[in-house]
Amino acid sequence: MKELWSQRCRGLIPYTPGEQPKGRKLIKLNTNENPYPPSPQALRAIKEAAGEGLRLYPDPECTELREGIALALDVKPEQIFVGNGSDEVLSLAFQAFFDPDKPIRFADITYSFYPVFADFYGLSYREIPLDEHFSLPLAPFLEPGGGVVLANPNAPTGRELDLCDIRSIVAANENSVVVVDEAYVDFGSRSAVELVSLFPNLLVVRTFSKGRSLAGLRVGYAVGDKDLIAGLNAVKNSFNSYPVDRLAQAGALGAIRDQDYFRATATKIISTRACTSGHLRSMGFTVCDSAANFLFVTHETVPAKVLLEGLRQRGILVRWWDKPRISNYLRITVGTDEDMQTLCQALREIIAEQA
Amino acid sequence: MKELWSQRCRGLIPYTPGEQPKGRKLIKLNTNENPYPPSPQALRAIKEAAGEGLRLYPDPECTELREGIALALDVKPEQIFVGNGSDEVLSLAFQAFFDPDKPIRFADITYSFYPVFADFYGLSYREIPLDEHFSLPLAPFLEPGGGVVLANPNAPTGRELDLCDIRSIVAANENSVVVVDEAYVDFGSRSAVELVSLFPNLLVVRTFSKGRSLAGLRVGYAVGDKDLIAGLNAVKNSFNSYPVDRLAQAGALGAIRDQDYFRATATKIISTRACTSGHLRSMGFTVCDSAANFLFVTHETVPAKVLLEGLRQRGILVRWWDKPRISNYLRITVGTDEDMQTLCQALREIIAEQA
Repeated sequence: MKELWSQRCRGLIPYTPGEQPKGRKLIKLNTNENPYPPSPQALRAIKEAAGEGLRLYPDPECTELREGIALALDVKPEQIFVGNGSDEVLSLAFQAFFDPDKPIRFADITYSFYPVFADFYGLSYREIPLDEHFSLPLAPFLEPGGGVVLANPNAPTGRELDLCDIRSIVAANENSVVVVDEAYVDFGSRSAVELVSLFPNLLVVRTFSKGRSLAGLRVGYAVGDKDLIAGLNAVKNSFNSYPVDRLAQAGALGAIRDQDYFRATATKIISTRACTSGHLRSMGFTVCDSAANFLFVTHETVPAKVLLEGLRQRGILVRWWDKPRISNYLRITVGTDEDMQTLCQALREIIAEQA
Repeated sequence: MKELWSQRCRGLIPYTPGEQPKGRKLIKLNTNENPYPPSPQALRAIKEAAGEGLRLYPDPECTELREGIALALDVKPEQIFVGNGSDEVLSLAFQAFFDPDKPIRFADITYSFYPVFADFYGLSYREIPLDEHFSLPLAPFLEPGGGVVLANPNAPTGRELDLCDIRSIVAANENSVVVVDEAYVDFGSRSAVELVSLFPNLLVVRTFSKGRSLAGLRVGYAVGDKDLIAGLNAVKNSFNSYPVDRLAQAGALGAIRDQDYFRATATKIISTRACTSGHLRSMGFTVCDSAANFLFVTHETVPAKVLLEGLRQRGILVRWWDKPRISNYLRITVGTDEDMQTLCQALREIIAEQA
């Protein structure tokens, strides 16, 4: 069936995204979407852009959007690259900055797209084991090498890295690129963007999907030295010149300009996260300290797989991986207060059934 | 400046898209955009999708849109792959179906992204010279090899291939994939989609950018055997799981359902093309027979570069390439009748100045 596929394509084990259910009404706590709608400014900007102008190609350089992001982050527009979601930005970065003969490093428990990218581009890599508390050991990242990829906060654990540690890693790797994936930075952690102007080898990757409630729009971006941004552009323009459409550029610009709305929804999620953590702990869960919009949890007696199935029967989706070290954990997205009350009630029932 | 770039990235010569001017009001006949707005059904569908749902990821499989396209083309949904513009679809196809050690073949004068993709993915290729009338010689494509890429109608010439010739090429290359890029098929030529169910090695790539007036939305698709579609999905899911956003899926579905609007605008462009060709010939231009929404022209006395500059001074953008064999040609997009009257008047002035 694969006779006509390229050699590279035949060996692929692609990334598996979380389920996107169609039809049936479910409480979806499995793909870390924001429970609140996008900013009204974003929606208004999209509707305004949905006109005759769509007959024309979008600005391939996303000029206005880069200016808007630069203003919000206090950097220069030439330090910004915009792509079709942070997955595309990360994928382009793997191609632009890493070479097959120099192993890159990332954690053994982190975003599972990293090894997929590396395998796809024929890159070698070392997976550095997190400790038993899912903390990152610093030493293996302080040796110079072929590049580093860090998720901060990490996924699926939610654990935050100290900015001083990130700074040490970036400083120790001056001859290779350190990518800090801040997909989940919007829920209370400190960004490495403030280090970008100090270190030409630091690339910070962010997204509008989580904190800005725009997963459906596909906009991600990178912040880094202009030479790194030029590398991303060289790769992008060898692959697809216009990955960010007119509506996505308009909507993202509307969203980045509405900082008040963004702060209000992020604050609600942080508060719901704290409250839910407390409830879960009182039920016998160990809950990782999370700086993200999800909780990584394991129960003292009931196996994660049993909880997963019990929740699914009750119409609640959460994420579970059949992987070493984490197969007794669930990753639960922080929804609205009401979603989390329903979740906690369902978990109480399942735990009671197992007692 | 490139110390931190990967080896592959350092050697890149990326594709250069046509200019997207900002600000000043110009007549833009340089990037083959449709002069008519998108279907009102498409715009309505986008506005309806611009709501709370954008907080959720899009359907990574574009199920509804694939069903809509399949219905319009009389094929099955599993024979359709949807991507972020036909450039992304082509780029994924180069990765999914071609190997470095088996040279692929395409014309020496064709879409200039093909050699960029091939170089970027480390593929070898043979550029087959078109004859002096820019016709494709059949023989070099009838030997089996590592794959074939044909643009039909061809760009930038506008010349159409005979469907019997395409069939012969596909039949002669049963052990490798033949990609037929039909970006410009919507303006009167015959599609190879009718051959897809007969040949498991044929992949037809199309776009919503031209005939559907949606260049700003970034939606392209491939039609082929389900095993080829599976190969494209394997590569896509190793690169970026969700390249087509919710608004793009909704808008494209609205557009594909509005066949009446599509036929009406395509018919207008075909009529304007015929009329403009006549005017240009009467001014001393040689005009290639075009089945596309552009004309490829050369003047008997005035050099193309002079015409290009004269038009630019008059606020009219057309496309010119500093490349062997075609450096005395201009590619002119077919706009509205009014655009083309302005163009012809400007050309008459420039030619008169040179006399």
